[in-house]
Amino acid sequence: VPMPRNLLFIVLDQFRADLLTGPMADCVPLPNLRRFAQQSLSFTNHHTVMVPCGPSRASLLTGQYAMTHRSVHNGTPLPDHIPNIATGLRSVGRELLLFGYTDTQPDPTHLHPNDPARRSYTGPIKGITEVVEMREEGWAWLAHLRGQGYDVPDADASDFDRLYRPKDGVLGGPALYEAKDSDTAYLTDQTIRHLDVRKARPWSAMVTYIRPHPPFVAPSPWHSLVDPKSVPTPAQGSTAHPFFAAYHAAPSSSGMFWGFDGDHSTLTPAQIAIIRATYLGLAAEVDYHIGRLLDWLEAIGQADDTMVVLTADHGEMLGDLGLWGKRTPFRAASHVPLMIRAPGLGAGTVDAPSRSVDLAPTLLDAFGARVPCQMQGQKLTSAGLPADTPVMVEMDLGEMSGGGRFERAWNAGASACRAVAFETGGRRLVHFAGHQPSMLFDIAADPDCAEDLAANDPQTVARLTSELLSFRMRHAGSYF
Amino acid sequence: VPMPRNLLFIVLDQFRADLLTGPMADCVPLPNLRRFAQQSLSFTNHHTVMVPCGPSRASLLTGQYAMTHRSVHNGTPLPDHIPNIATGLRSVGRELLLFGYTDTQPDPTHLHPNDPARRSYTGPIKGITEVVEMREEGWAWLAHLRGQGYDVPDADASDFDRLYRPKDGVLGGPALYEAKDSDTAYLTDQTIRHLDVRKARPWSAMVTYIRPHPPFVAPSPWHSLVDPKSVPTPAQGSTAHPFFAAYHAAPSSSGMFWGFDGDHSTLTPAQIAIIRATYLGLAAEVDYHIGRLLDWLEAIGQADDTMVVLTADHGEMLGDLGLWGKRTPFRAASHVPLMIRAPGLGAGTVDAPSRSVDLAPTLLDAFGARVPCQMQGQKLTSAGLPADTPVMVEMDLGEMSGGGRFERAWNAGASACRAVAFETGGRRLVHFAGHQPSMLFDIAADPDCAEDLAANDPQTVARLTSELLSFRMRHAGSYF
Amino acid sequence: VPMPRNLLFIVLDQFRADLLTGPMADCVPLPNLRRFAQQSLSFTNHHTVMVPCGPSRASLLTGQYAMTHRSVHNGTPLPDHIPNIATGLRSVGRELLLFGYTDTQPDPTHLHPNDPARRSYTGPIKGITEVVEMREEGWAWLAHLRGQGYDVPDADASDFDRLYRPKDGVLGGPALYEAKDSDTAYLTDQTIRHLDVRKARPWSAMVTYIRPHPPFVAPSPWHSLVDPKSVPTPAQGSTAHPFFAAYHAAPSSSGMFWGFDGDHSTLTPAQIAIIRATYLGLAAEVDYHIGRLLDWLEAIGQADDTMVVLTADHGEMLGDLGLWGKRTPFRAASHVPLMIRAPGLGAGTVDAPSRSVDLAPTLLDAFGARVPCQMQGQKLTSAGLPADTPVMVEMDLGEMSGGGRFERAWNAGASACRAVAFETGGRRLVHFAGHQPSMLFDIAADPDCAEDLAANDPQTVARLTSELLSFRMRHAGSYF
Amino acid sequence: VPMPRNLLFIVLDQFRADLLTGPMADCVPLPNLRRFAQQSLSFTNHHTVMVPCGPSRASLLTGQYAMTHRSVHNGTPLPDHIPNIATGLRSVGRELLLFGYTDTQPDPTHLHPNDPARRSYTGPIKGITEVVEMREEGWAWLAHLRGQGYDVPDADASDFDRLYRPKDGVLGGPALYEAKDSDTAYLTDQTIRHLDVRKARPWSAMVTYIRPHPPFVAPSPWHSLVDPKSVPTPAQGSTAHPFFAAYHAAPSSSGMFWGFDGDHSTLTPAQIAIIRATYLGLAAEVDYHIGRLLDWLEAIGQADDTMVVLTADHGEMLGDLGLWGKRTPFRAASHVPLMIRAPGLGAGTVDAPSRSVDLAPTLLDAFGARVPCQMQGQKLTSAGLPADTPVMVEMDLGEMSGGGRFERAWNAGASACRAVAFETGGRRLVHFAGHQPSMLFDIAADPDCAEDLAANDPQTVARLTSELLSFRMRHAGSYF
Repeated sequence: VPMPRNLLFIVLDQFRADLLTGPMADCVPLPNLRRFAQQSLSFTNHHTVMVPCGPSRASLLTGQYAMTHRSVHNGTPLPDHIPNIATGLRSVGRELLLFGYTDTQPDPTHLHPNDPARRSYTGPIKGITEVVEMREEGWAWLAHLRGQGYDVPDADASDFDRLYRPKDGVLGGPALYEAKDSDTAYLTDQTIRHLDVRKARPWSAMVTYIRPHPPFVAPSPWHSLVDPKSVPTPAQGSTAHPFFAAYHAAPSSSGMFWGFDGDHSTLTPAQIAIIRATYLGLAAEVDYHIGRLLDWLEAIGQADDTMVVLTADHGEMLGDLGLWGKRTPFRAASHVPLMIRAPGLGAGTVDAPSRSVDLAPTLLDAFGARVPCQMQGQKLTSAGLPADTPVMVEMDLGEMSGGGRFERAWNAGASACRAVAFETGGRRLVHFAGHQPSMLFDIAADPDCAEDLAANDPQTVARLTSELLSFRMRHAGSYF
Repeated sequence: VPMPRNLLFIVLDQFRADLLTGPMADCVPLPNLRRFAQQSLSFTNHHTVMVPCGPSRASLLTGQYAMTHRSVHNGTPLPDHIPNIATGLRSVGRELLLFGYTDTQPDPTHLHPNDPARRSYTGPIKGITEVVEMREEGWAWLAHLRGQGYDVPDADASDFDRLYRPKDGVLGGPALYEAKDSDTAYLTDQTIRHLDVRKARPWSAMVTYIRPHPPFVAPSPWHSLVDPKSVPTPAQGSTAHPFFAAYHAAPSSSGMFWGFDGDHSTLTPAQIAIIRATYLGLAAEVDYHIGRLLDWLEAIGQADDTMVVLTADHGEMLGDLGLWGKRTPFRAASHVPLMIRAPGLGAGTVDAPSRSVDLAPTLLDAFGARVPCQMQGQKLTSAGLPADTPVMVEMDLGEMSGGGRFERAWNAGASACRAVAFETGGRRLVHFAGHQPSMLFDIAADPDCAEDLAANDPQTVARLTSELLSFRMRHAGSYF
Repeated sequence: VPMPRNLLFIVLDQFRADLLTGPMADCVPLPNLRRFAQQSLSFTNHHTVMVPCGPSRASLLTGQYAMTHRSVHNGTPLPDHIPNIATGLRSVGRELLLFGYTDTQPDPTHLHPNDPARRSYTGPIKGITEVVEMREEGWAWLAHLRGQGYDVPDADASDFDRLYRPKDGVLGGPALYEAKDSDTAYLTDQTIRHLDVRKARPWSAMVTYIRPHPPFVAPSPWHSLVDPKSVPTPAQGSTAHPFFAAYHAAPSSSGMFWGFDGDHSTLTPAQIAIIRATYLGLAAEVDYHIGRLLDWLEAIGQADDTMVVLTADHGEMLGDLGLWGKRTPFRAASHVPLMIRAPGLGAGTVDAPSRSVDLAPTLLDAFGARVPCQMQGQKLTSAGLPADTPVMVEMDLGEMSGGGRFERAWNAGASACRAVAFETGGRRLVHFAGHQPSMLFDIAADPDCAEDLAANDPQTVARLTSELLSFRMRHAGSYF
Repeated sequence: VPMPRNLLFIVLDQFRADLLTGPMADCVPLPNLRRFAQQSLSFTNHHTVMVPCGPSRASLLTGQYAMTHRSVHNGTPLPDHIPNIATGLRSVGRELLLFGYTDTQPDPTHLHPNDPARRSYTGPIKGITEVVEMREEGWAWLAHLRGQGYDVPDADASDFDRLYRPKDGVLGGPALYEAKDSDTAYLTDQTIRHLDVRKARPWSAMVTYIRPHPPFVAPSPWHSLVDPKSVPTPAQGSTAHPFFAAYHAAPSSSGMFWGFDGDHSTLTPAQIAIIRATYLGLAAEVDYHIGRLLDWLEAIGQADDTMVVLTADHGEMLGDLGLWGKRTPFRAASHVPLMIRAPGLGAGTVDAPSRSVDLAPTLLDAFGARVPCQMQGQKLTSAGLPADTPVMVEMDLGEMSGGGRFERAWNAGASACRAVAFETGGRRLVHFAGHQPSMLFDIAADPDCAEDLAANDPQTVARLTSELLSFRMRHAGSYF
């Protein structure tokens, strides 16, 4: 296999795998992703190993499970001594340019107690070079918007959230900024401009689109691209497990859309339909700009010798089972796209399981770098991993400093609010570190995880529990 | 509770808890340990969390499970960033003086590839001050012996093992050196001398006796103190589990006594009785010298304001179930003494479980140091931990570079040759990371682990497996 | 003195002090700098302690002489353990935002041998946050130009220098880009935009203008602002010292303007006049944009509580004594502006000497940060330093890897091609580490350093040599 | 030249070069050193580059001038990033075993504020392995003495100085300990014992004798070996320079002998003669034990393939010019022996100058290690360095925290109390960083530095001042 000249590593945020296939996919046009899928090796059973954003990206970039890198919350520091894709590429003389964010809380070991870096969890990971900043604060984009004449708030102003107020103040209405100035457009413009002047030499870039992550507001015409009426209603299922009561015990995701206080029980079916349609519109907007990126690659004549990798950090419940966001153990939260187009790799689909931790070894190997023994995934090829390769998805349902809704609902410390989903052989087990019962799903028959089979099939629960324990023991981390 | 002025932390090597109570105890006089037990808080259900030596001491000193510190073999480096008792004591202005060894493979991060520190696994742990060296190489003691006129080999000489040849060449015969010059005597002499000139200021010392660790040879008169005929025969039990066949698949512990090639199947009952008697003789020798240490403490008038902690790194199978050494999942390998005598602590016994990882928090707290969040044990008091506190004992049965007898017997990689024993509520579960069946023991009725109940009680196996998994999830490590 | 809310630290590049006063000043309008000078404390006898760019900025930011920080060439790494303004500000919770460059070669201690950071000397100094990149490569500005539709070369393209080709190809002609898109304009636009969205919180910014540094080409109308005929001709003086022959022994500064091969002897008086006029035009362009920055500060209402510091990294010979650039021991290379406007500081002029190393202590103190003992300058106040405060300017005339024109001309190693200028009590001594004779100038009578008095005044040479030696001994660095 | 198998690096403390040749040498028998000198390459014009102990050893071990390593007082930390002989030997797989001390104050960068390592300046240098401790506290030797039945004080006891009280309480009387138990004997015994058991493999050892350093008391019969009447009286000379008044402005060296309060003016000629005789007796004792070391080397058959290096950290004024100790700029303080015996090196004398900083490069080169660019000395061979190689000896006459007798006498800060002696072409210049006049000596005619020629020869002073300045500029340090 020839070594690619360039790397273009695209990471979407909160993008479900089923936007590319199935009923959801049917109601949103994503022509560029579909075209790219045709040219790529597509991994149809790909999962993040951790949620939410920061931790999932830590795993994506380090190739480690969260039980090893221990960055389990947005805001838990990631130690500098853990190797990652960027440090690995440096060992072969490559600088990974970042257009966007990695959501990394920096290692505090050598920071002064007052160091401002301690105050933000959205720093760039060690070894990467931030070229265009798109952190949560979004200073660069804000500066751009103001430069274009928009009346936008200051980054730290108390009325910051008006940035995401629809023009008319109505859910589903168009964003205050035009499509040509949206975050997605801005990031794409900047990426193309900066890479274009660097194209004389081999380059490596990571481009991270925040969308279709909330807040759910899209610029015109994307805001009205999808008719809410055409969008399938959320999946329904059993909500008897104590997970659900705890999830709903307090408002969450207050920033989901402008004015929303986080109490999902107040959402009407009409609102839900609008949100789902807006989510699809944002996905379509991302698709459009990815098309621009790929077209530019074609235009400069480097499409054939660039490795392009496209994936997402995690999915989004989008109202399925009554849940929103990604801190859940269900498939909609972990199942994401992965497509790789690279010289000599060929196109096609791989249905065997693959995991976000597999990407770091795959990328480093492709560029001739030694894969550090600390990385816990496996190199992906067109052959796919063995069909019985397990998928393990971790999550800390509690809060970094304790006292969250799960801790309160379960009267437990944060460490007892951890959960792991474990999928192998067509079954998904969910094990809780507290005393909650396990869940079990037949994922072929029930990909939505609507029916919990645990009570009726204790043998399978016991077998998978034992396998999960063994898997975790075998995958204990290595420092050296 | 008043803060002690001094710390005397004594660690024996390969010393079974049942030398202090029960049939074994009946045939060996350990008057000093018994006297000390009367004055101390004695933890009767205390266990190491890891075997063998280096890893068990890593857990003892860092307060971390091996799944966290990842120093799982003699020779796996321990990262410098993990806090330990010595670094913790430094934060309150105390230097922990080492008389003996900690069996630590140094962190290689900033070592040159040729650095000689990479070649030995018996270095001192970060932050400790080695005053009298007693590493595996034993240079200081060798130098002493030669200074006393003994004909001893050079440290790296090919005939080094003749140091441990009985004078008459016969198993059970007296050692080449006299009792006053033995390793145990030498270490005690040196410890007393060095501490005696430092006693004008508060001091902190860790004294580690290598004995009764093999080689099984004792100086006169300790070699003949115990009549082999009086020693109970080893425990018998079921050996059907594949663990046993793998254990016996190749010779091991070739250094157990002079001339032994490691093939345990060749040991005769008479030899076994002699070995067990020698082991007890070595334990009695250690007892004698501990008595000297405690007498010195009394003599200088600091007994009342010194915290004295006595424990062992792990036990020894001593032929029970046909096994030798400590790399087994059974009680004889993990159950060790723990006695603490400290101002204001009181004497008595604690029957609730306690673990080696509990010592680091206990000691640091006693001396006013902050207990780092990275430590995973709990502070021990006379109240004891809750009765249902689990004991988890980890072990890597494979070899550091793979290819050991377990790997070969099980046709598996080293990571699949890991095992964990988990004891709670009167039951001990043994879970294997490979595909071997679990074991289950009723430890009240069967402390020798002679009868494996797993096949007959799958529910308990499933319940404990689930609890173990939860325990490990709750005890995932913290970096910061 | 009240603590300022914000810091705006402006550094010009290659900007002579006499552009603000004297004959050169008379032929270029710098209204904004003059207005700012009226509002500020102006240090009229201010000097860099090192040339050229990277090293001078290392001293400016660390407060250390080059004999201490040892970053003596563009490309000599600056150790991370040396504190600087940015790390000092972090200790009081402030992040120093960089709009521009610091020309820092990174500390290689923990870099992989292949790390691309080893290949560029224009990295940002430790602790600073690069918001808008303006390194030598100029990717961001290039990307902007291309985005505006200019036909500009790729950053690493072989024809990169055409970026600085005058439109008509004629020396003194207008640049290929319009004034609104020049590097100076772009940096100002970006700085204002990015700071404007951050103004809700206290901010600290360092803005570094590359101009009037070569290449000597200015956008219209700045290119023709100054009539070459009106510009004073260069200073003439004695060139008998071997420094001059060595300087002219080989072409240098080939990038001074488009098409110039570095052979200064070929420059005609007419060319020289055009270059000097272009230099002044570039200075005027910078003046214009600094005016915009200051106006913006006024407009947002934060002018009164922002500390504004304006200085330059070093001067430019501009043909004086037949020399160009800044690697010379003469006043035109070291004498630069310094103006400070801060709450409570007052306006006026300070004629006592001050040095670039004095700024780091001054700034850190102003913001309540402890001044590290490693810093070697002194805090500046309106009282000025004592009148006899010495100015020491160091330079390595050789090349980083040896073999430069000075090494060849003097048949010496690079370390023997070091020189130091030392100014005190109205005299400037120049001492050479090789066997070249010293130079001596009466700076009041001869600020151009046209007449070397050394041969006629050995006593003063001896006295100043002794004083310089003592000064260097007293200012040996501190690590801790 | 064949690579030696072993390294034996012997460092004496406060041992003047003229004990081996001249009038002093005539009254003390040093048969072993003389024999060794016959077999060695002897450098007769060898000098330390720094005084006192800790700083001089920092230069000896790092190959750096004090102006570079900046460890200028006993107690100024030496940064870990500076390479030294021990770290260099590690790069070729060798561990430098320390029998004795290096007087290194540890780098505090990563130490907790309470770390006890901050409290002692006599720690071992980075990379060395302390086998037998002989720090100022002398715990190991004290423990040995007590083990031998001596009534010695505790290490931190208030009456500690009685350890050095002559048995009869009279100056010149025998020490409380017998010759076989003296510090010198103990160190030799231990060194031989520890090396003897390690001799099966190549070894590298540094042995540092504290003697003939004060306190001036020797065990019998060494205390009476030299008749005080036979010892030459101290050199007399001009003491008009303000150095002398400042030196005598306050008592110093109170520990010079038991009961002495440091006021040198009270010393009678008889006392001075006794002290000088005792000093010679201590030197003879050291000679005796070095003989034992060399004999042992012979006995084990490794004399021919061991590189043996013998030197001293600095000299001792011994009453010359009315001064004691080594913090003076005169020859008696800097001139020390250096002898090297190594396979293939040959015997003979080298009269060209050599400096302590030359040893690190010489040793590392001999053992095949790369000489780090940070080292500032040159490799020594039988050819000698060029005859005009300068010798520079630095000293900080002030105190680490200021306020010493020089600061007070000169009304100056500590940094203005620095001095440098510079010897080249037969002249020694002494330059002071304050405003004291320089000194000048003709060292061939006046090795005792009795007559200061500075006032009469300003040209030579000026020339050497200029050369010294150039030398220091050329020898500015390198970090990388």
